[in-house]
Amino acid sequence: MCPDKRKVIVTQTHTRLAALRAIMQQTGTTLTALAPGAHMHWVLGYHPHPDERSTYLLVGPESAAMVVPSVNAQDIGSRVDVPMHVWTDEDGPSAALGSALVAVVPAGAVRVSLDETMRADAALLLLDQLPAAERSFATETVGALRMRKDDAEFSALKAAALVADHAMRAGFAALRPGQTERQVADAIRAGFAQKNTPSAFCLVASGPNGAYPHHSTGERVLQTGDAVVIDIGGTTGGFPSDMTRMAIVGHAPEGYDAVHAVVERAVQAAMAAARPGVAAQAVDKAARDVITQAGYGEYFVHRTGHGLGLEVHEPPYLTATSETVLQEGMVFSIEPGIYIPGRFGIRLEEIVILRKDGPEILSSLPRTAFVAA
Amino acid sequence: MCPDKRKVIVTQTHTRLAALRAIMQQTGTTLTALAPGAHMHWVLGYHPHPDERSTYLLVGPESAAMVVPSVNAQDIGSRVDVPMHVWTDEDGPSAALGSALVAVVPAGAVRVSLDETMRADAALLLLDQLPAAERSFATETVGALRMRKDDAEFSALKAAALVADHAMRAGFAALRPGQTERQVADAIRAGFAQKNTPSAFCLVASGPNGAYPHHSTGERVLQTGDAVVIDIGGTTGGFPSDMTRMAIVGHAPEGYDAVHAVVERAVQAAMAAARPGVAAQAVDKAARDVITQAGYGEYFVHRTGHGLGLEVHEPPYLTATSETVLQEGMVFSIEPGIYIPGRFGIRLEEIVILRKDGPEILSSLPRTAFVAA
Repeated sequence: MCPDKRKVIVTQTHTRLAALRAIMQQTGTTLTALAPGAHMHWVLGYHPHPDERSTYLLVGPESAAMVVPSVNAQDIGSRVDVPMHVWTDEDGPSAALGSALVAVVPAGAVRVSLDETMRADAALLLLDQLPAAERSFATETVGALRMRKDDAEFSALKAAALVADHAMRAGFAALRPGQTERQVADAIRAGFAQKNTPSAFCLVASGPNGAYPHHSTGERVLQTGDAVVIDIGGTTGGFPSDMTRMAIVGHAPEGYDAVHAVVERAVQAAMAAARPGVAAQAVDKAARDVITQAGYGEYFVHRTGHGLGLEVHEPPYLTATSETVLQEGMVFSIEPGIYIPGRFGIRLEEIVILRKDGPEILSSLPRTAFVAA
Repeated sequence: MCPDKRKVIVTQTHTRLAALRAIMQQTGTTLTALAPGAHMHWVLGYHPHPDERSTYLLVGPESAAMVVPSVNAQDIGSRVDVPMHVWTDEDGPSAALGSALVAVVPAGAVRVSLDETMRADAALLLLDQLPAAERSFATETVGALRMRKDDAEFSALKAAALVADHAMRAGFAALRPGQTERQVADAIRAGFAQKNTPSAFCLVASGPNGAYPHHSTGERVLQTGDAVVIDIGGTTGGFPSDMTRMAIVGHAPEGYDAVHAVVERAVQAAMAAARPGVAAQAVDKAARDVITQAGYGEYFVHRTGHGLGLEVHEPPYLTATSETVLQEGMVFSIEPGIYIPGRFGIRLEEIVILRKDGPEILSSLPRTAFVAA
């Protein structure tokens, strides 16, 4: 790593540790324990590859420590300005974890904020060493901080969204009767690749396959009269994209246009409901009410949206029960859908940033169905 | 999924559930709880995409159940012949998990074998519903079964290894002064791609970077006199490869040849020690003794090997303390290394299957250092 880049990251880490300690104090948290993943990445600007060797970042009220396997110690030490407690394959992580806990919470932890994505073996090893501590998840600490994006994060997400637009157009261009779902997906991946973006996921669900919200793209051959759900995402400069558009092969299947219009109205209702200060469930309700009133309530089988940042799915989640209060600077999806078994599915997904007066859409691609002649 | 393929998978699932129940009985386990990942994949021939929506496969003495989010229920139901307990984004997983537990362990679980890779939030939700159960990890049940490979698994791993040989040769062909580590890695990825194999990882660590066992391939320009550690792996037909070879740019750095010879002797000593019935630690000791006696003990900072199957790292682990008894049909790496800070690193890695009379190496590429003129 070049020294300048390291300096920027170390400065950012100090800022983010300070923000984390402020929220720890508000929540009565005395220890935050993170695993290699997005939470750790947000704090350190980096995370080691997650694998079976337990690795922790422990943050206490005044100090922090990392517990790292010896095989990665040199590399981590060259990137991170946090004291390390190193364990060997021979000894295992238990003793190093114990010494790190003594360093970070010498009086013992009262309330631990545990990375909810941590592997069970690492999490239980830690909790077994803190038998008296109250347990919570880092959604409440690091997760809460990560929900509001700063300008640099927004710019990165915006750039990623425009790359996804490009990849979606590449998919549209490949759509015609006789092509398979996989061939369309290959064209989308090539579109991402043109913009130096690895494709992270690429769902092409044609005809009746569209009724499976998480269909696995396969060998089905596109036919005239198919509706096609295309849900794609890549990773641009470390940040994800996620968008869903609809395409039509030749002409729409019977009844399609009316259902598409319902989903579009649901998107618009959610957009109108999303304002700073509103609970996330109100946005879900706005979309769900439109679909329910149109008679398709049983076919809208998922939440209205999810946050997007370092991860493609992260808080806030826009569910029927979420009490999370939306704030300016939050980035999330709005993606209602209707899935009619045996016929077709329709989902329209935008990523938005919440501004003072409402959502700003990151994509520049219209939500109308693309018609492949 | 075509009906024939589904039939094969369902048959395999019945066989593997029977094997799992046999080992559960031996270990006094009344409930095995698996998350989307390799353990679940081994049982079901498939696993849903792991994400923040808790998904479980629960296996009891007589029945099994899955707990699945509604968004994936149709897709999972089309692939898996196990009763499903479905939860919605609105309600969350807790009640569905409760009803599945009642179905699978009506009398309550006495000893639960928990997927060690399960996310902490899912694992703790489960354990909180089983306050009286003794806890263990699925390394002891599914993990133990997965260590010994059947003929189909061996064939798949052998095919994957030969693809990695091809990709390694592609990397060798791209090696010359003035190229960056990243350019060599690109050539390796292209080599994998020629064989329809996504590259899973690709470490090219040149000169002093080689002293970081898990270096991140970067922009360093190769120079005459560099030793280069190349550790690569891909995924061929769902099965991983993993191999490490050394390359030399022009001529070896001072002192290189003697250290390479020590590592080669360590590989050979480990090969000679690996026999059915021997503890894994004896293989580690054989390699480590060679390196220690040559005076480089402090520079061999990792275990001698790891298992390889559905995952690139899985049991058995060949550490200095592992008491796992090696058995015929186990597949694992033998990969001693010496890492001299500021100078160079050397690692040589083979994947072997343990036969009655010793290890059979999967790769066909020699372990001598490739010299790029």
